[in-house]
Amino acid sequence: MTVRVALLGCGIVGSQVVRLLGEQAADLAARVGAPLELAGVAVRRPQRHSDIPAHLLTTDAETLVTRDDIDVVVEVIGGIEPARSLLLDALKAGKPVVTANKELIATHGLALFETAERVGVDILFEASVGGGIPLIRPLRESLAGDRIRRVMGIVNGTTNFILTEMAHGSSYAEALADAQRRGFAEADPSDDVSGRDAAAKMAILARLAFGTPVHLNDVRYEGIEHLRGDDLEYARELGLGLKLIGTAERRDGGVSVRVHPTFLYGGHPLASVAGPFNAVTVESEAITEITISGPGAGGRQTASAVLGDVVSVMTGGARPPAPPLQLPLVEDVQSAFYVHLEMADRPGVLSAVTQVLGDHAVSIKSVVQRGLGENARLVMVTHQVLESRLRAALARVGQFDFMRSEPRAIRVIEEEFV
Amino acid sequence: MTVRVALLGCGIVGSQVVRLLGEQAADLAARVGAPLELAGVAVRRPQRHSDIPAHLLTTDAETLVTRDDIDVVVEVIGGIEPARSLLLDALKAGKPVVTANKELIATHGLALFETAERVGVDILFEASVGGGIPLIRPLRESLAGDRIRRVMGIVNGTTNFILTEMAHGSSYAEALADAQRRGFAEADPSDDVSGRDAAAKMAILARLAFGTPVHLNDVRYEGIEHLRGDDLEYARELGLGLKLIGTAERRDGGVSVRVHPTFLYGGHPLASVAGPFNAVTVESEAITEITISGPGAGGRQTASAVLGDVVSVMTGGARPPAPPLQLPLVEDVQSAFYVHLEMADRPGVLSAVTQVLGDHAVSIKSVVQRGLGENARLVMVTHQVLESRLRAALARVGQFDFMRSEPRAIRVIEEEFV
Repeated sequence: MTVRVALLGCGIVGSQVVRLLGEQAADLAARVGAPLELAGVAVRRPQRHSDIPAHLLTTDAETLVTRDDIDVVVEVIGGIEPARSLLLDALKAGKPVVTANKELIATHGLALFETAERVGVDILFEASVGGGIPLIRPLRESLAGDRIRRVMGIVNGTTNFILTEMAHGSSYAEALADAQRRGFAEADPSDDVSGRDAAAKMAILARLAFGTPVHLNDVRYEGIEHLRGDDLEYARELGLGLKLIGTAERRDGGVSVRVHPTFLYGGHPLASVAGPFNAVTVESEAITEITISGPGAGGRQTASAVLGDVVSVMTGGARPPAPPLQLPLVEDVQSAFYVHLEMADRPGVLSAVTQVLGDHAVSIKSVVQRGLGENARLVMVTHQVLESRLRAALARVGQFDFMRSEPRAIRVIEEEFV
Repeated sequence: MTVRVALLGCGIVGSQVVRLLGEQAADLAARVGAPLELAGVAVRRPQRHSDIPAHLLTTDAETLVTRDDIDVVVEVIGGIEPARSLLLDALKAGKPVVTANKELIATHGLALFETAERVGVDILFEASVGGGIPLIRPLRESLAGDRIRRVMGIVNGTTNFILTEMAHGSSYAEALADAQRRGFAEADPSDDVSGRDAAAKMAILARLAFGTPVHLNDVRYEGIEHLRGDDLEYARELGLGLKLIGTAERRDGGVSVRVHPTFLYGGHPLASVAGPFNAVTVESEAITEITISGPGAGGRQTASAVLGDVVSVMTGGARPPAPPLQLPLVEDVQSAFYVHLEMADRPGVLSAVTQVLGDHAVSIKSVVQRGLGENARLVMVTHQVLESRLRAALARVGQFDFMRSEPRAIRVIEEEFV
């Protein structure tokens, strides 16, 4: 018997899937108990692919996914359509599905899981978050005997590379160009730098951690495009490093899922994650805290995770996520903040600012003041405060005539770690 | 329908299993699709356990494991017998088994796996390595699409705690006493400090990483009892920190599995793992490198991992490891070494030592010399050299009449990391 694989998409990840199917054929056959065979590859345009026999290529994905001889469908096209329709068709035809498509799972995951459950086949998506790093499976299975409190991490390698370069003195534009040159960022980087890619991944992790459906649209996210080199510079004086942090946590009886640029103190386990790496920390009641890290992207890594899922599907090691709970989404959460004010340094200015902050119950932990006369800067780190309250205070501060620009605020994680 | 659990052993881990079964009853029922019920607890002596109804306690484990109403057997007794016989009986009676018993899996794993395979039931052992940290499952499943080159890590929390304290200036005896006071070390710590506990865990990880049966007796291990504070002190001047590192790797067409005190340079991802934490790095061809870290022990953590396995067993998420390959074990491996010589500093001494090292093709990377006259010390870090060759050179050096004690050597990991 042979396991026949239909591959949808043959870009960076797809071509690595083809390559690994060849290179690791013996290992995969031993693990599955039968050889894996590429039975068809759906591509948009029938151009030549040097690794793939021409007769396997097809532009008719609709027919491929429901063909009788197909045992498992692997989707690495990305985006919503046609991936969504093809996978629904495949599931309805009783084909197990493996996908690396974070956007699809984060927006239409619920419909896909319900279809899979109804038909009684598997849908796996380890490769949708963290490239080859095992994150989905620990959340679904290893931590099944525990109650997860929080999942927090760096889940976008492009932005982590850019922030690492900026911490070493590059401007945002230089760092982005460097990332593009090295293949860590796409020509159109907006999905990454806007935080949307990380938001999709956090929606998926939140769904698994808390069993409640979280749609990409439910995730508040903020990107790194507006960050300035001098924020990183001032923060360094306060012992802080900047990361794009995704957080999904139980809070006030509900769940909060968000992605923001966030300052970390040096001792935080995520502070040392550099370059295009990803790392996720899971906090839970019994196990307390585990961290999983590794290269967050790369065609070969993602392809390897895809094949791991294929092995699971073919050996019965998979099962659909538990049916959803409904937990309310919490939007306004407490955090410490880094606040950066550009102002004219006239008598009474500092007291005016601190008066407004005090009126809004924003309390200051540390302050750095720099510059003189018309060109002064006030950089502060606050204690924990509800975001809505800080925003109200800063809106009021922004109205002072001595302010030279809009106040800027970035979250800070204060907790002490081992 | 109810899933009826037989628990063997009710010590630190067992009582936490009972507790979590109660506290997380709703969550577990949702994940399994049926409530879990404690159907019997085998104990050595029928003393009272405040959490357990007296009618569930039994001293007759043999009968319990084969009882018709039992759906899954959980073993947390530890040690070889009676655990081995009980689990074989349970498997033969068609009961899936979950165990936290590293010693048993590392010595009799093969027989247990074969029996499970033959009968067609599962045996899971996530809790046997790394407490609640998911290590077994990523190796068995997530990395199934990849070829693993090396598994390396800190898999014993007791020794890591002791070494962390020693790095802060404690003596070995003080650090051990402190570990015992805080419950990180047992009254008889020999299993931990001898490296045997870590060796058992590395045997298990090697089996999963490379698919070749590795017996605890196949693992070369060395403990931390003989380490001296001044080794850590001198090493700090060379930028090195000391960890008890387990390594399982493909080498020269075979597999090498070993546990040794090892120096790491500061930038190594394992160098910052402090206190009773564990961390394991898996290097593989496609994914390159992932690291998983967290608290390595603790009754509650281990119990949580046990229950995760119970969920997997009851939902079909488990399968026995692939049938074994046979790879030769490689014993003599290359490494860099820290070498500590206590000697009388007479004319010609340094040249005599370096001459011997040179004759054995041991090349020196860095040297620190301290002390004067009869009380000098020579501390060196070598380049990569076969262990047998270094040992031969040091045996020769030890014969010089200016040596005041046996030469000491400790491995160093030289590789540069991101």
